[in-house]
Formats: sequence, C-alpha cells, structure tokens
Amino acid sequence: MSGNHGWRRLGARTLIDDRWLKVDALRLATPTGTILDPYYLLTENAWACVVPVTSEGKLVVVEQYRPGADALTLEFPAGDIDPGEDPATSAARELSEETGYRPIGPLHPLGSLMPEPSRNTGRGTAFVVLVAPAGPAHADPAEAIRVCERNSEQIEAAIDTGLFCHAAHVAFYYQALTRNLLCPEQLSDASDAGKTQT
Amino acid sequence: MSGNHGWRRLGARTLIDDRWLKVDALRLATPTGTILDPYYLLTENAWACVVPVTSEGKLVVVEQYRPGADALTLEFPAGDIDPGEDPATSAARELSEETGYRPIGPLHPLGSLMPEPSRNTGRGTAFVVLVAPAGPAHADPAEAIRVCERNSEQIEAAIDTGLFCHAAHVAFYYQALTRNLLCPEQLSDASDAGKTQT
Repeated sequence: MSGNHGWRRLGARTLIDDRWLKVDALRLATPTGTILDPYYLLTENAWACVVPVTSEGKLVVVEQYRPGADALTLEFPAGDIDPGEDPATSAARELSEETGYRPIGPLHPLGSLMPEPSRNTGRGTAFVVLVAPAGPAHADPAEAIRVCERNSEQIEAAIDTGLFCHAAHVAFYYQALTRNLLCPEQLSDASDAGKTQT
Repeated sequence: MSGNHGWRRLGARTLIDDRWLKVDALRLATPTGTILDPYYLLTENAWACVVPVTSEGKLVVVEQYRPGADALTLEFPAGDIDPGEDPATSAARELSEETGYRPIGPLHPLGSLMPEPSRNTGRGTAFVVLVAPAGPAHADPAEAIRVCERNSEQIEAAIDTGLFCHAAHVAFYYQALTRNLLCPEQLSDASDAGKTQT
C-alpha cells in the first residue's frame, strides 16, 4: 500500500507471524504528513460463511463458547478458506463439518464483508443455501459446538439480546432477509443464483 | 473466562500491550480436553457508531483510506468510547468531529455488535439520529476523511461493490432500515427513542 491515496508506508516491524495471526507495526504517513507509529496491521485468513435455510424456513446455527465475547454465542457455520479453495466450496464444507447438513440447492452469493477494514485484512464471503440434514457433524474437536434450528423471529431476538453478536453474520442475515433469500421456494430456484451474485 | 462453559484458561503470555492493541497468547483447554496453544486473544477498545440521517433522508458517511482494506472505503462516523464515557455521548462527539453535523433529534439505540467474537473483545454500539450541518468538521488530522451524503440506494450499491465493506456498519445500516429508522419523520419522534432500545 505504499503511496496509496497519499498514504505512505515508511517502515514495518513484524511482531507476530504464524498460521493464525500476523501482526505488523507499521510506520505510516497520512496525506497531511501526520506520522502514525505504531499503526498495527493484522493479516488474517479469508473465511467463508453459509446462511443455511431448511425446507421449513428455519435457519441452521451453531452455538459455541467464544473467548473474545467470553460467552456462548450463536453464529452461522463459517471457517477459513483453504489455500486455492474457492469460497463456495469452503462454505459447503464448513456447513457439512459443523452441522451435518448438506446443500440441496444452489449457493446464492451474498458478497464479502470485512470485520475491521481499518487495520485487519480479513474478509468473509457468504452464501445462502437450502439445506437438509445428512448425517452427523464432523466438527473439529476443538470446536465444542451445538447445532440448532431457529426461525427468523428467534434470530432477531438473539441479535437484540446479544447472543447472536457477530457483526458480519448479522449483516449477512439482513442481506439475505432483504433480498428475500430466506424463503425456501426462492432458494431452490437455481436460475436465481446468478442474479443475486454481486 | 477460567472455567467458562467448560473452557479452561491454562496460561497466557502477553505479546503486545499498548493503547491501541493488546494481544495475549492463551493456552486454552476446550470442554473435550483439546489444548489450543496459542489461542490469540485481542483486547480492543469499545467504540461507538452513528447512522446519521438528514431531513432529506440522506445518510452522512465518511470516505477514507483504510490500511486493512488497502482501499478507500465508505463508513458511518465511529470512534473509540473514552474511559467513563457513555456510548451515546461518544457517538454524538464522533459525528461532530468527523462530519461537522450535529444531532437535531433523539439518539435511537440499535444495540451492540462484535466484529470478531471468537478472539477479539471489541464491541461497537450504534445509534440512528436525525442530523443537520452545523459547521466544519474537526477530525483528527490523522484521519484524512471526506464527508458525503448518500441515499439508501447508493449505500446498498456501495455495499454490493465492496466500497462500503465494514461488516458492523453494514449490519447497523440494515438494522436501521428494517426498523424503519431511516425515515426522518420517524427519527424526529423522541417518544420512539425508548421503544427502539434493546
């Protein structure tokens, strides 16, 4: 990003660099000449998220303890995109691993969002898909998760109480809702999948 | 979070600890006995965000370069909550400093969301408010920002193209939209502010 929009990177020190997190302390000059040092830049993996809708119009969510929130939370299934993997494949894989459900219709892309564009390179890409139970979940043993089905009213109540608190997942929920993509009839139509692509 | 929901914290090393960011490498045991080491926990400041709506129904947004995105982005005004400050005060202050607009009606709370509840303690609290221009912005010189007014269609187009990419801000936009809080008439009604509190 040297010179981007008048911002200049004058230096960088790598403080953490491993599989899960990279943190660089940058020395940046803004267009007005202000020096920001340290400006922490976090480099994170890209991830995929799936908004799974059953034939009954319920949403499949996972309940798990989250150390950042220090609480049990509800989220959609999501996980890192493996190197070279396309986001739709990652989304379908995470759905299967975390919940045991499988897609029974096309994946409708919602687009990508960034949890913290100011200083974090991480980006999540989401899809809505019609799903059905297909067997047991095979979640990573590190993820002690419980799978549940919730209707829209329950999701919105969980957003209001803070149980469903992951900002990107909340955004994906509302994007799916306002695009009428939480209706099973709409989701089963493969011809519509292309139209929702952004 | 020692012992929370069966998760146990077995140890912690602080890797970064300053005003802007704290990173601890935790040694965690999940309920099933899996050891996660390192599990990075990021401790960040709480922040406030304001969705500013003009009497003409336009949204006031700020355009700025974001190093995480490595691009110009559109966002709502937002910033850290000072120690002891209540979020509504922070939101009104950030509105004034970043845009030069001021509230001309009550602040309608939207609730709080977390950009990354898995490993980041950061939490944003948002409000919708009717605003009017009141003078020049007094932004931090480090923030080379441009203030713009956009209608809802333009915001949604910017979400689709990735220009408006901050997940929490996207979520707050849709929360305001689905609660009918982007209408100037609705926002000027002080008696409604309490009802929208979550």
